[in-house]
Amino acid sequence: MSATTLNTTLREQVRATRQAALKLAVLPTDIKNAALAAIADAVEARSDEILAANQQDLAAASAMVEEGNLSAAAYSRLKLTPDKIATMAAGVRDVMRLADPVGELHWSRELDTGLVLHRKSTPLGVLGIIFESRPDAVTQISSLALKTGNGVVLKGGREAVNSCRMLVQVIHSALEAQDIPTASVTLLTTREETRALLALDDLVDLVIPRGSNSFVRYVQDNTKIPVLGHADGICHVLVDRAADLAKAVPLVVDSKVNYPAACNALETLLLHTDVAAEFLPQVLTALQAEGVEVRGCDRSRAITDMSAATDSDWETEYGDLVLSVKVVDSLADALAHIEAYGSRHTEAIFTEDASAAEEFMNSVDAAGVFHNASTRFSDGFRYGFGAEVGISTQKLPPRGPVGMEGLVTYKYLLEGDGHIVATYSGADARPFIHRDLLS
Amino acid sequence: MSATTLNTTLREQVRATRQAALKLAVLPTDIKNAALAAIADAVEARSDEILAANQQDLAAASAMVEEGNLSAAAYSRLKLTPDKIATMAAGVRDVMRLADPVGELHWSRELDTGLVLHRKSTPLGVLGIIFESRPDAVTQISSLALKTGNGVVLKGGREAVNSCRMLVQVIHSALEAQDIPTASVTLLTTREETRALLALDDLVDLVIPRGSNSFVRYVQDNTKIPVLGHADGICHVLVDRAADLAKAVPLVVDSKVNYPAACNALETLLLHTDVAAEFLPQVLTALQAEGVEVRGCDRSRAITDMSAATDSDWETEYGDLVLSVKVVDSLADALAHIEAYGSRHTEAIFTEDASAAEEFMNSVDAAGVFHNASTRFSDGFRYGFGAEVGISTQKLPPRGPVGMEGLVTYKYLLEGDGHIVATYSGADARPFIHRDLLS
Repeated sequence: MSATTLNTTLREQVRATRQAALKLAVLPTDIKNAALAAIADAVEARSDEILAANQQDLAAASAMVEEGNLSAAAYSRLKLTPDKIATMAAGVRDVMRLADPVGELHWSRELDTGLVLHRKSTPLGVLGIIFESRPDAVTQISSLALKTGNGVVLKGGREAVNSCRMLVQVIHSALEAQDIPTASVTLLTTREETRALLALDDLVDLVIPRGSNSFVRYVQDNTKIPVLGHADGICHVLVDRAADLAKAVPLVVDSKVNYPAACNALETLLLHTDVAAEFLPQVLTALQAEGVEVRGCDRSRAITDMSAATDSDWETEYGDLVLSVKVVDSLADALAHIEAYGSRHTEAIFTEDASAAEEFMNSVDAAGVFHNASTRFSDGFRYGFGAEVGISTQKLPPRGPVGMEGLVTYKYLLEGDGHIVATYSGADARPFIHRDLLS
Repeated sequence: MSATTLNTTLREQVRATRQAALKLAVLPTDIKNAALAAIADAVEARSDEILAANQQDLAAASAMVEEGNLSAAAYSRLKLTPDKIATMAAGVRDVMRLADPVGELHWSRELDTGLVLHRKSTPLGVLGIIFESRPDAVTQISSLALKTGNGVVLKGGREAVNSCRMLVQVIHSALEAQDIPTASVTLLTTREETRALLALDDLVDLVIPRGSNSFVRYVQDNTKIPVLGHADGICHVLVDRAADLAKAVPLVVDSKVNYPAACNALETLLLHTDVAAEFLPQVLTALQAEGVEVRGCDRSRAITDMSAATDSDWETEYGDLVLSVKVVDSLADALAHIEAYGSRHTEAIFTEDASAAEEFMNSVDAAGVFHNASTRFSDGFRYGFGAEVGISTQKLPPRGPVGMEGLVTYKYLLEGDGHIVATYSGADARPFIHRDLLS
């Protein structure tokens, strides 16, 4: 297909999703929940078909693994099992049980007698979600989109194309049974379509890229559509002079090793000089027992032998069992290092000094600032959001782990009875009341 | 100055503003308010100096008016008077009296015993604000930035350079008296600096362009920094079949003529076919009495003689005493027209039919959706926000008229006592409590 034809076809597809989204926006909660129940049931009922489609993908993928073109980890993410299918259906039912985030009244205000302003949550419109090989993302994303009243355009990894197609077909059949337009969920299958999708800033309201840092950065740099995502997660821990060192060792270990590939994993450990000599050997022993390679600044290496950290270590997200360590002279020095190198994701202080903790919590500019808790808590499920749509390290809301609230916006609804603004201006201007109404 | 030197110098200036912002972020409310009081006092006390600086700008500007290079309206916006200076000081004191939007606790949630998550509002960091000839914007913007704990980089129109410099000097002296870094408020004076500022996406958190649609679009197209602004305001009114026509006439007139240059002014009037023949002559008489040129669709022109609207009229923001009129067959047709041509700013229905009103309010995707009220109410002051930072027609929050809440974000603060995530995963996973605490 030529690029022009592809763009035209894609535009028509996404326009259809946009039309469907107008209907989704006004669907009552019970219809949305009935559709979600139907999707969960259909995923279970048609698990044989889903597994068969997945087998086709796996056959091609195992050849790729042999040729060294796909990692064993990617193959395992791609592989569906009866257990995974049960988990997918359960995940859809979890979303069904969450409160409907659409139509929530934020507040009402009486501007004048008979003139009342309401602020209410509404769907964003159309979401574009680009993910990798996990086919289970299809049901998770589609159910979140449906619950939030948004149309969704999905682009999965090409390795998962048969699985994704089958899952979307299953979802479509469940939507049809509830008279919901199937264009609500649209699947794209080629990389060229990703590029074309990113150009549709008049039709797509939010893009969520799920993938490597470089992929997220590519998306951010190549679209005018707002992007929910984060390219970096360089998280720090400061072990303060007043840290409880026995408590700090497992905190550091958990922050680093619990899931090193996660964006909320610890990358650089800052040690207050007053405790560095005592703490460093303890934490090194614990980290090395978990297979962590530790790279230290000169002052760390003067305490214990280890490989040297260079300047580039401070700006590296290892995503692996590697940790850099730096000795600092003060809380202020730690704050300056975090300001210079942090990616505003999650930063933690371990201390028993309440005023040091308060200064750290107030001063650090990051989506998550933690006191005596592992950086790994920075996560939508752990925060109790029910679902995590993504993590954002941008400054503007939504920031940090983002639940369903990141998929809705709001509008102002004004109810009057012939009110005109001329009444409220000029010499005899009538004053506004501006009284908040109890909700 | 070479482009490279300019960029380096500007980067250092903005970095200083960023450093100052770290201090502003943790300033207590009473210090911020004392600084605002000092600014208001200083503006009054030094009004002679401010007026003298303004005279220099006016002398140059009046030559430009004579040469046809500056409009009389721009000249009048540039001109300061003792009255305007009093209004500026009063505006700063108004901001002082508003509640501090920083440090507001949104909610707290117990994740587990001794592990509590808080969400709290924080400043954005550094604002970049680019405005036109009004020097009074300097005190308004600086006071909003200070109150919200943000550093601000200001770029005023070159016609106002002496006035702006003097006002920033006055603000700096008031900040110094409160030991607040003067780099908190930085003034740029050249157009080249605007371009360079837009490139500093690592140092500036939000750009607010105040100017023409084309200027706002230029900014949106030339920066990766989030932009708070709107390029278009094509607002519609639907006079429904069940409209109270006597009520609808002044509503239409107010929406169109109260301030035609405003983005919330009416551009296209949609008339339900059932009332078009009766309503059109009435509203035309009223509009023509106000000097409005009305352009109609064929069906409108079959009712009353008027000039013809072409397709381009539906996508034009006149910003002037011009109105297009279109007869529609149904509410659905009106919704389709608004979906196709509206800029998601403000849309209104005039009707006495509650269910038609409800359908319109629910279905229209716009920042403001109004029932029996003038589109001109779409405004931060009228909404009771105390101050209006800008109006946004983007989909993501903040949307519509934006008050001080648009200048803050939030962060998650987690207080633990040695909690690690390993406790909450695996075979013996401890469950989370996720209990919302009363605030």
